[in-house]
Amino acid sequence: MEVTHAELDELKQNLDQFFLIVNGMLVFLMQCGFAFLEAGSVRSKNSTNILIKNLLDSFVAGVAYWVFGFAFAFGPGNKFIGYEYFASAHMPDVQFATFFFQYVFAATAATIVSGALAERCEFVAYFVYSFLITSFIYPVVTHWVWSGEGWLSGGMEYDVGKVAYKDFAGSGVVHVVGGTAAFMGALIIGPRIGRFHSESNTTLDIRGHSVPFAAMGGFILLFGFLAFNGGSELSISNPGNGANVALSVVNTIISGSVSAFFTMLLQKTGLFGNQRWSLLTTLNGALTGMVAACAGCNVYYPWGAAILGFVAAICYKITSWLMVKMKVDDPLDAVAVHFGGGTWGVIAVAFLNKDNGILLKWDQESGLQLAWQLAGFVAIVLWTGFLSLLMFGILRLAGILRVSEDMERKGLDIPKHGEPAYPLESYGHGHIEKVLR
Amino acid sequence: MEVTHAELDELKQNLDQFFLIVNGMLVFLMQCGFAFLEAGSVRSKNSTNILIKNLLDSFVAGVAYWVFGFAFAFGPGNKFIGYEYFASAHMPDVQFATFFFQYVFAATAATIVSGALAERCEFVAYFVYSFLITSFIYPVVTHWVWSGEGWLSGGMEYDVGKVAYKDFAGSGVVHVVGGTAAFMGALIIGPRIGRFHSESNTTLDIRGHSVPFAAMGGFILLFGFLAFNGGSELSISNPGNGANVALSVVNTIISGSVSAFFTMLLQKTGLFGNQRWSLLTTLNGALTGMVAACAGCNVYYPWGAAILGFVAAICYKITSWLMVKMKVDDPLDAVAVHFGGGTWGVIAVAFLNKDNGILLKWDQESGLQLAWQLAGFVAIVLWTGFLSLLMFGILRLAGILRVSEDMERKGLDIPKHGEPAYPLESYGHGHIEKVLR
Amino acid sequence: MEVTHAELDELKQNLDQFFLIVNGMLVFLMQCGFAFLEAGSVRSKNSTNILIKNLLDSFVAGVAYWVFGFAFAFGPGNKFIGYEYFASAHMPDVQFATFFFQYVFAATAATIVSGALAERCEFVAYFVYSFLITSFIYPVVTHWVWSGEGWLSGGMEYDVGKVAYKDFAGSGVVHVVGGTAAFMGALIIGPRIGRFHSESNTTLDIRGHSVPFAAMGGFILLFGFLAFNGGSELSISNPGNGANVALSVVNTIISGSVSAFFTMLLQKTGLFGNQRWSLLTTLNGALTGMVAACAGCNVYYPWGAAILGFVAAICYKITSWLMVKMKVDDPLDAVAVHFGGGTWGVIAVAFLNKDNGILLKWDQESGLQLAWQLAGFVAIVLWTGFLSLLMFGILRLAGILRVSEDMERKGLDIPKHGEPAYPLESYGHGHIEKVLR
Repeated sequence: MEVTHAELDELKQNLDQFFLIVNGMLVFLMQCGFAFLEAGSVRSKNSTNILIKNLLDSFVAGVAYWVFGFAFAFGPGNKFIGYEYFASAHMPDVQFATFFFQYVFAATAATIVSGALAERCEFVAYFVYSFLITSFIYPVVTHWVWSGEGWLSGGMEYDVGKVAYKDFAGSGVVHVVGGTAAFMGALIIGPRIGRFHSESNTTLDIRGHSVPFAAMGGFILLFGFLAFNGGSELSISNPGNGANVALSVVNTIISGSVSAFFTMLLQKTGLFGNQRWSLLTTLNGALTGMVAACAGCNVYYPWGAAILGFVAAICYKITSWLMVKMKVDDPLDAVAVHFGGGTWGVIAVAFLNKDNGILLKWDQESGLQLAWQLAGFVAIVLWTGFLSLLMFGILRLAGILRVSEDMERKGLDIPKHGEPAYPLESYGHGHIEKVLR
Repeated sequence: MEVTHAELDELKQNLDQFFLIVNGMLVFLMQCGFAFLEAGSVRSKNSTNILIKNLLDSFVAGVAYWVFGFAFAFGPGNKFIGYEYFASAHMPDVQFATFFFQYVFAATAATIVSGALAERCEFVAYFVYSFLITSFIYPVVTHWVWSGEGWLSGGMEYDVGKVAYKDFAGSGVVHVVGGTAAFMGALIIGPRIGRFHSESNTTLDIRGHSVPFAAMGGFILLFGFLAFNGGSELSISNPGNGANVALSVVNTIISGSVSAFFTMLLQKTGLFGNQRWSLLTTLNGALTGMVAACAGCNVYYPWGAAILGFVAAICYKITSWLMVKMKVDDPLDAVAVHFGGGTWGVIAVAFLNKDNGILLKWDQESGLQLAWQLAGFVAIVLWTGFLSLLMFGILRLAGILRVSEDMERKGLDIPKHGEPAYPLESYGHGHIEKVLR
Repeated sequence: MEVTHAELDELKQNLDQFFLIVNGMLVFLMQCGFAFLEAGSVRSKNSTNILIKNLLDSFVAGVAYWVFGFAFAFGPGNKFIGYEYFASAHMPDVQFATFFFQYVFAATAATIVSGALAERCEFVAYFVYSFLITSFIYPVVTHWVWSGEGWLSGGMEYDVGKVAYKDFAGSGVVHVVGGTAAFMGALIIGPRIGRFHSESNTTLDIRGHSVPFAAMGGFILLFGFLAFNGGSELSISNPGNGANVALSVVNTIISGSVSAFFTMLLQKTGLFGNQRWSLLTTLNGALTGMVAACAGCNVYYPWGAAILGFVAAICYKITSWLMVKMKVDDPLDAVAVHFGGGTWGVIAVAFLNKDNGILLKWDQESGLQLAWQLAGFVAIVLWTGFLSLLMFGILRLAGILRVSEDMERKGLDIPKHGEPAYPLESYGHGHIEKVLR
């Protein structure tokens, strides 16, 4: 007896779940990446604080996204929001792979914020915002775009056919959401003590305590981004899936590479301060290039990805420069990377995509595509910005957004966590080394 | 010509091997996780020592499990032990994927012990115990449960049908084995100098030298656990495999998340010392929740996993507290995490599993299931405990279990390894920095 | 209607691409491994410098391999070189997975060199050599061996049938290329200041600043090697693929494990300096064993892999010793690991392979195989050595190979990058800790 299509489809379904699970696992490791990028970028006195926040991101999301988030995002509902599958009740078993993959994305969106608020945010405030982002703010946006019934992916019918907002791996859905919330948070919480000096009108570069840790986090993020963007194909068993995944991964690398170079060179020109070969700037440039690649890495030619990365570098440096001008203190440059890169990523789809990108074919369809990309961007920014304003504003008014000035000066690790990152008494040897060779 | 079932089965077999290999690779990285969790948790003077032990775990197991372990575990044999495939002789090629996956598990079981003996164990003793655990003690237990012909997985026939010990990913097989050996080792080697003060009846919290390293190890372990538990499905090509793997992964995350929270809150109550938001405690709580999830993450509803994690948190804190009361010094809290979490994990299967868990359906079958879980637990503890007693007892009597008091005080890195973790002469710059911006 | 072979083949193709992509991702993480192995092995004053070089390796290759490298390597061409697919133009979409997998290999080859030139190489010189290696030197060698139309894989017809150079995962293609370039670079750039004292005829062991970082890098490399060697099967959907991949992974582990042990014991004998249980030496031994396994891990019995690892340990220690004798300064022992291990790996195929290895069957075929392995080795060394000589020679003559003596003494991080790895001002707490328990 020969193999039936039902049997083959069964196998395909399993294979697709395998694909989602493996990629989800690799994306899960990005929490470690964010944790060390941030830990290396803060002073040693706040290292334990930022690490536990990043650690908890996975756990907060593990509860919040399970109980509420997934239901709002992917539960059956209306064009705006889903309302089934709370606590995965009545969710078909076959959805668990999707749940897992989407959960790791949700955790990522929340993590972006912790960097921008680093070194001064209260622990309780952290819980509130990370819970709200992973349970509601982010899931609703994913419903609009990725659930299959949202208004942004539904688009509209025109003479030239349906046109809708496109955002493959979430330049807008993940990074503009995270970047917008990070900006509102950083704005409302205010700069770290000593960052901006109004009298002398100077800005102090408060350096992190460990370039190696920041670099380690960066390496892990670059690695995770491949699964983030590649995995967003969501299936591997259908004709063309493999090639699309590979193209997405390759474009992510090309965009990240080109952006890294140009960011490094822009820094080296001296237009943006320190005229050196800066590792941290180069790394942020690479990340911005990959963030920008999310929205359309599956629909660009590799040369398109190169252009994408080139512009991403400029977006990163300008956003970063603007943040300083606006005196908004973002210790990780998270807004520049995620909002800057994400914004450009959303828009770029309309310019660079193979089928109807404006650079390839300027017609009504490509114009409408640009309009939809802008509409999606504005909707995401307004939604996230308004709710973040509310959330951080209330936390501030309640006096629980920021630690006391005394604690900020002395560092959060000892009073909050009782765990200095490097306890002095645990260092040193009792031996005098005799190096004889 | 149409596709035959033979062809499809060939493909499925390859796919299943792929699944085992990828998951095995991710579990392999857990060695790095354990290494840094432990390195961060010891003082700087013993960092190289604990790192080389963790590094060697993979290599000791690479030889011991290949030559002996796999044969005892998965070689054809009787109900108690296998006795073919030594050095993979006559092993069918198709078994290599299984071999690899089981090898990385064996290395994990041995690694658990090194944490409990940290900062005072002789290097030669380390070799002896890690060799014996990976070549014999652990493999025999896996034969009982996972080989398909063991007495524990064989179970017995009752009126209600066959009932047997269930342990999907090894709460008992891996973690109770590792935890029991770790307890016996820590008991027999005795506490570190300065840990317990009998005169004042106080306990000194000997802190590790790097919270970031411990956190990094923790992140990698959380990541690896997803593959550890998900991969234990062992195949992906059969109907339902994908959904089972995803459910296992999701339950692992939910259990870990809930356990992390409750552990953190329990610590914050002040019932267990330091009344702070402790990163290291939270991390251990998460790990305990994942350890507990091993045995039945494939057969719980997500809400069951939440209950599992809640109780795991309590098991962790109580075991940890008991260890201090018993004056057994476990620098990593490995016993609390692995024995505490593993024990609860083994028992929980009888209470929480979808089909006949006591909380869902109290009848003869569920009672027998509980009996079998307890029987398996007792058998594993007796087997491992007795052999560990013998092993560590002989090492102690031979005077090669523990380093000298002088060396312990001064640290092991320089005299044993000639490699201080942070050689002083390699630090510092010759430049005076001019920070101009 | 039944499933057709066309449909099954479509699925298989997707599965194979999935296999390549996942393994490629894991190999990509090896950049992080190299980065930290190197960062831990240099002094703190040069940490940022070596980290940014490793970071840029991925980006340089991301551009160079895309624009030129892949075309020279896998573009249709002649026996010596390919000449299509520049910037992936006209490359079939189905090739992107292959492109990605080969790209991560190319980045690896370039990375090997940075270790040997650490602590003294100019930044611009770094760009030149990494660009040339990933765009031309390495790709041409891969064309010879892995493109399907190269002269080395083409071999020749003899009475006993076709015999050709065999190099499964690149002991020669990757590691001898990288090791040869590293040797030429280290030779031409000269030793670090203070390394060799001609008057007293002594050698100073310039230690790296962090054993934990080196160990972390090592762990990640061991992990990545499994995907490096396993993934080199290149497909998973054909009969036997799964077993071959698993065998390759297992042999990689066995070879690495045995080599680690013997290297450790060789060091402990005191024949090679420091008579201690050295972590760094053991780690390099393991890596050498895995490097040696590349060429034939798919065609050895596991006992063959054990022999392989045993000899690899000796090759490593002897090469390392020779380097010191020749007064060539290689801070990472990269030449000993990659050239030493790679050379033995290439040769070992002729001795140990299941089908016609000299140790198993000494006949004309096995003799010819040895001849081809040697021919391949010599060709690779001559090609890489000559071009490296030219490249590094010109850079030296141009005076842009090495930093000034003053900068070398004081460290590269501050003047070149403006980013000391551990900025002093970012350390310390304002709290006096009260440890109350």
